[in-house]
Amino acid sequence: MPIPSLRPSESMPEPASVVSSGRLCRFAAEVLLRSGVPQDIADIVAWSLVEADLRGHPSHGIARLPVFVQRVRSGAHDPQARPKILAASRNTAVVDAANGFGHVAAKFAVELAVEKAGEADVAVVVIRRMQNCGILAPYVEEIAFRGMIGAMCTNGAPAVAPVGGSKPILGTNPLAISFPFVEPITLDMSTAVVARDKITMALREGRKIPLDWALDSEGRPTIDPGKALKGSLLPLGGHKGFGLAVVVELLAGVLSGAGIAADVGWLYTTDRPQDSGCCMAALRVAAFMREEEFHDRLTRMATQVKGAGGGGACTINLPGEIERRTRVERLREGIPLHAATAETLQHLAEEVGAKPV
Amino acid sequence: MPIPSLRPSESMPEPASVVSSGRLCRFAAEVLLRSGVPQDIADIVAWSLVEADLRGHPSHGIARLPVFVQRVRSGAHDPQARPKILAASRNTAVVDAANGFGHVAAKFAVELAVEKAGEADVAVVVIRRMQNCGILAPYVEEIAFRGMIGAMCTNGAPAVAPVGGSKPILGTNPLAISFPFVEPITLDMSTAVVARDKITMALREGRKIPLDWALDSEGRPTIDPGKALKGSLLPLGGHKGFGLAVVVELLAGVLSGAGIAADVGWLYTTDRPQDSGCCMAALRVAAFMREEEFHDRLTRMATQVKGAGGGGACTINLPGEIERRTRVERLREGIPLHAATAETLQHLAEEVGAKPV
Repeated sequence: MPIPSLRPSESMPEPASVVSSGRLCRFAAEVLLRSGVPQDIADIVAWSLVEADLRGHPSHGIARLPVFVQRVRSGAHDPQARPKILAASRNTAVVDAANGFGHVAAKFAVELAVEKAGEADVAVVVIRRMQNCGILAPYVEEIAFRGMIGAMCTNGAPAVAPVGGSKPILGTNPLAISFPFVEPITLDMSTAVVARDKITMALREGRKIPLDWALDSEGRPTIDPGKALKGSLLPLGGHKGFGLAVVVELLAGVLSGAGIAADVGWLYTTDRPQDSGCCMAALRVAAFMREEEFHDRLTRMATQVKGAGGGGACTINLPGEIERRTRVERLREGIPLHAATAETLQHLAEEVGAKPV
Repeated sequence: MPIPSLRPSESMPEPASVVSSGRLCRFAAEVLLRSGVPQDIADIVAWSLVEADLRGHPSHGIARLPVFVQRVRSGAHDPQARPKILAASRNTAVVDAANGFGHVAAKFAVELAVEKAGEADVAVVVIRRMQNCGILAPYVEEIAFRGMIGAMCTNGAPAVAPVGGSKPILGTNPLAISFPFVEPITLDMSTAVVARDKITMALREGRKIPLDWALDSEGRPTIDPGKALKGSLLPLGGHKGFGLAVVVELLAGVLSGAGIAADVGWLYTTDRPQDSGCCMAALRVAAFMREEEFHDRLTRMATQVKGAGGGGACTINLPGEIERRTRVERLREGIPLHAATAETLQHLAEEVGAKPV
């Protein structure tokens, strides 16, 4: 009996429409541009949103476009803000994202980390006054594409209750790491059982959630996404996931100079900047061994892991492999949009005077 | 209702005896010395074993002394081996542990990483031809005591089945990270549901194990520690824990030049060196902010997390806090030894002609 996969599925039984990634990207950028976001920044945000949809994570995808527009309107996001380096050494830097788009700050930090690690083998960059930057995988993969191991974590608004507690205090605090290979091997995971927007998505689409995802506001397990959103998420695997969430908070929140725990604002509370933080690292593989040797050794590991299936019909996937397959498929066949998301996007297009998606 | 703690307890209803940590440390060092291990190396190994018992992890403690003696006798451990630097840059190093005691290599890497990060803010050191080095917390805490964030992971012999598979292929692949504070805040966890020696310990003490720890050799969940040891451990929280185990394998096994996955030998298979690997990092806090500011910010996080208890009687513990309390208590009151462990140690003492513990 193979171990059952515990991967939370984002089922979508009846997509209202299927849109090409290129079209969706242009749509997102146009909406942002018409909302006062400079073209280059709009392009980065659109890229991040569509990458999430391409990889099968609609919770972090185009469905978030309306809230970003709303945040620009309310002043919670400064659409013009550019990241600035506050302090730097040969191997480190502190970046101020200045309450702009987190996606832009993350891209900036990627380039900075790659440049520094290119010269000095390893670099660590932290970001403060940051805001949500979407899924982390595309950023760490940009590092991996340069022959470096890329790692990154961000803190977020209180969502997860500590082990022994019943009040949400830490964010879902995701971490990601990518290794250079034929295609990068990339782990991108929240330290909660699931990312909070998987629950937001379930609520929007009228689905129940599994009983082991969240607690209601009284601290009782719940299958109601609405009650879960008023309560707290469970940490991954109890005290270990809680420990990982604390580690992310210390690196991305405490060390970066950003907001800490309850100081961090919600993406969906649009009256103020989030002031979240990020910690990013790049490590040059060639500092340890020839890249060809690393590639051969990685192949050896992958072959062994893939061969541990016990002869059954189950496929063993390395981290990020399911996302990669989904991405290839959706680049070819388009991105399915749920009815609720498609409707929201049409309203948004009308509002800002953009061509409908 | 607070979230129940999922921390696996190592219950010990009737300790046969209680021994002071100082006495236990001298005993372990004497046994190793009489087995042909140089004094300085014996002292480091004894320190590591007793630190595990002090922190409440007897599975990684003095109960492992007999197997190390056996490995020295069989030639699987070279008791005289000293770690050597094979390659180094300003911020990185590749260390060859030369099939000696892993504890010595880990201590060596700590000093090297601290020295490099002291000069260049961040350092990454990998170790190959390594062997088991015990719990990781004491090493990363040595880095934290110098005002740096210390991180470390090691790979191990096949123990955990991948999600979708039924054969053990990756080690329990632990990772640890420690942050400088009044007392360091330290996460030290295996990426399996539990460390494998928790099951070895249960077998030795005649206890059953929880149903969600392991599979038997047919891939069925089991409460029998004997069957579990012939089968495979479950990864922490399904695909996320499996992903973390792959990441550790890539850093500690692939990048280090050590054995990979099934190439890594068992601690308890004493006919050959283990050839495991390690990846260690040190990051100077002062490169990002004044240490006082980091301290104040960390206090703010700790206060918030501790305050999320919802008014119940449950205590919220930061990572490593339970271990720290146990350590203080056991430094004062001594270390309880299970009857089976005490008996084994007396036999060992007779064998090598050491004073009984």
